[in-house]
Amino acid sequence: MSNEVNVGLIGFGTIGAGVVEIFNKNQNLLDEKTGKKLNLKKVADLDIITDRGVKIDENILTTDVNDILEDEEIDVVIELMGGYEPAKTFILKALNNGKHVVSANKALIAKHWEELIETAEKNNVRILFEASVGGGIPLLTPFNEALSANKFESIYGIMNGTANYILTKMTEEGLEFDEVLKEAQEKGYAEADPTFDIEGHDTAQKLIVLTKIGFGKYVPQENFTVEGITKLTPLDIEFAKNELEYSIKLLGIAKKVDEDLEIRVHPTFIPKNHLLSSVNDVFNGVYLVGDFVGPVLLYGQGAGRMATASAVLGDVIDIALNPEKELNYGPKTPQVNKVKSIEDLVTKYYVRLTTVDKPGVLHKVGEIFAKYDVSIESVTQKGNSDRLPVPIIFVTHSANESAVKKAIKEIDQLDEIKGETITIRILKE
Amino acid sequence: MSNEVNVGLIGFGTIGAGVVEIFNKNQNLLDEKTGKKLNLKKVADLDIITDRGVKIDENILTTDVNDILEDEEIDVVIELMGGYEPAKTFILKALNNGKHVVSANKALIAKHWEELIETAEKNNVRILFEASVGGGIPLLTPFNEALSANKFESIYGIMNGTANYILTKMTEEGLEFDEVLKEAQEKGYAEADPTFDIEGHDTAQKLIVLTKIGFGKYVPQENFTVEGITKLTPLDIEFAKNELEYSIKLLGIAKKVDEDLEIRVHPTFIPKNHLLSSVNDVFNGVYLVGDFVGPVLLYGQGAGRMATASAVLGDVIDIALNPEKELNYGPKTPQVNKVKSIEDLVTKYYVRLTTVDKPGVLHKVGEIFAKYDVSIESVTQKGNSDRLPVPIIFVTHSANESAVKKAIKEIDQLDEIKGETITIRILKE
Repeated sequence: MSNEVNVGLIGFGTIGAGVVEIFNKNQNLLDEKTGKKLNLKKVADLDIITDRGVKIDENILTTDVNDILEDEEIDVVIELMGGYEPAKTFILKALNNGKHVVSANKALIAKHWEELIETAEKNNVRILFEASVGGGIPLLTPFNEALSANKFESIYGIMNGTANYILTKMTEEGLEFDEVLKEAQEKGYAEADPTFDIEGHDTAQKLIVLTKIGFGKYVPQENFTVEGITKLTPLDIEFAKNELEYSIKLLGIAKKVDEDLEIRVHPTFIPKNHLLSSVNDVFNGVYLVGDFVGPVLLYGQGAGRMATASAVLGDVIDIALNPEKELNYGPKTPQVNKVKSIEDLVTKYYVRLTTVDKPGVLHKVGEIFAKYDVSIESVTQKGNSDRLPVPIIFVTHSANESAVKKAIKEIDQLDEIKGETITIRILKE
Repeated sequence: MSNEVNVGLIGFGTIGAGVVEIFNKNQNLLDEKTGKKLNLKKVADLDIITDRGVKIDENILTTDVNDILEDEEIDVVIELMGGYEPAKTFILKALNNGKHVVSANKALIAKHWEELIETAEKNNVRILFEASVGGGIPLLTPFNEALSANKFESIYGIMNGTANYILTKMTEEGLEFDEVLKEAQEKGYAEADPTFDIEGHDTAQKLIVLTKIGFGKYVPQENFTVEGITKLTPLDIEFAKNELEYSIKLLGIAKKVDEDLEIRVHPTFIPKNHLLSSVNDVFNGVYLVGDFVGPVLLYGQGAGRMATASAVLGDVIDIALNPEKELNYGPKTPQVNKVKSIEDLVTKYYVRLTTVDKPGVLHKVGEIFAKYDVSIESVTQKGNSDRLPVPIIFVTHSANESAVKKAIKEIDQLDEIKGETITIRILKE
């Protein structure tokens, strides 16, 4: 790499426009930080007509991606088109043509980690993807550098802004999921098809990347439990907030237990005094614990044009400064053995039964929990009626997931139980 | 640097022992992350007798620092002795002898920044000091890498664990400063002579380093206001907590205002819903705002043997991976012009007057504030007596520091004012 670093951008969408904007606004800073001239040489997109609201030299726009992939002068390719194909083909071609790659494509990286990294290593180029997890938050770099001497014990991440916005609004305003989702869609905080965000898949992909970097273990998504937030009700959220001092968050959790790995994505009640409980709205936060550093929280905007573009350019600067830098994508030897089954999870549970308030139901339920060795920390009954069904909320002590499930299955067969029983896991560090 | 990286450690104190412990416990991980053999080859200290509670090969201990500085096989020198001299002489000698240096010595770096960096650059070696600010928190590295494409707007740091522990205890338990300090000393959270921590000097030194890295501007400590926490009372803290929903924190603030730099250290009231308000006990948190990334919080243990050693080894790994890496210590051109005088500060103020509750005093005080263009957001009077002095608390709208000072000087001359008037700045982002 000479004193000039030529950058090609594939994908002129929202984040792509953010990248162009950083070049427009902070060109001097970029040059000064790298000691080189950083050129945005070409931008490829199928649509080069629509106005993206940023100033751009029309001569650098192209509809032919090979204008970038085959341009020998281009040193760094930024891939921001997303999805598996043709993004993967383009990235592999760029790497094989000796170009460094910067990508925000968590889906692709989570799925094809090994092939991408190996191709980069084989070609002596770098592939960086800080923007793929936690948007603008410095996250992968710290794992690989400042925190690199640690063996990690656990990673807890609020990594989806859409889900977190919805849960924050449900909590603050006591609204139903559907109402808030609609509002979020109107505000542009949720996609027209929000499945990916609200069902936890986006969080799962980011967790896969963090788990590989933190524990050296690659776990494909089909190998762990992923639960979304669509079934949450204001009743549970408000009760947990007011009576139990819990917040509700969609958490990605990767945790070393004995020598195995717990990995899971699900809505989780978090005690109010835990810092993750203060990560609200569209913000993301990743809380990790290292054997030497102890707990660390990294917090910021997990998505959005400007924040994500900031992380993309951070990677470009790193490459411009250190094209020969050796790679460090977490420990080469996995720090954990097998992936534990969710059935073996031990945590605290929030359980809401809906029951007709007959004398004796508490006793029966208590007996069933005891039979499965699930001990109860607190019981609260809301409302008071002999006829209407009322909610009764149990908080368990640490208990085994499969035991809790069996107990609830048996409880649900009691005549007094009306309506669905709700179970929500509680964070237990 | 061959496939073996030899490390020499100067200073076998608390943190030095932590470094030895990481080598003992995570040697395999260190080797794997760097792809090299990382050897702790020598440890120098005047006292090599006292048991530090960690296993160490006695043959690597030496009382002669030149056994490290003049050993041609040593690639990286870790300096953990602290203080200005002889630490500075040793570091310069190490750099001039072609050795990379890792240091946690914020005092030295804050004072001799230019000489240290220039000497490293001249010798084509690296000097890293992630551990000098925020202990184990990834802080300087993110500024230089993941966040590097940003122009920074502001940096707010809770960077002294002792002060934060004391303020947290005063808040939670309503205790006097002296009581809590004594308890903190007994627990080992405060030094026998705590001046450096509680008067804000430690925070100031860390702020100097962050300001240089964030804004490219070196500001020596004598050029800005540094106020400690010794004058804070439970009365103000409790009132702010219960009536105004503020927390009290010792903040280091560096902020771009117009094109100039605001830089200051002082106790600050922070609204409860601000994330910094949840940074409690001995923890540190730095909240920064970049023009693209927006707000970011980096949180963790700001001191202590294990966390600080984690950051030191993070730097050593970075050097082992990338000995040729180009340096990036923030923008070379300062991003701000002059340092603003504290007299020109515009923020909100908490003002507690102590007055005999004569009718008319509120009116007189209001007139004086108005005369100096200080407008009032709220007034609260606690207690109710015609004879005893009672506190009256004013919260101002944004006002000018010098105007507030002048107003208070005049107010203090009123006959009705008894005892000292307390002024505390309120965070205004």
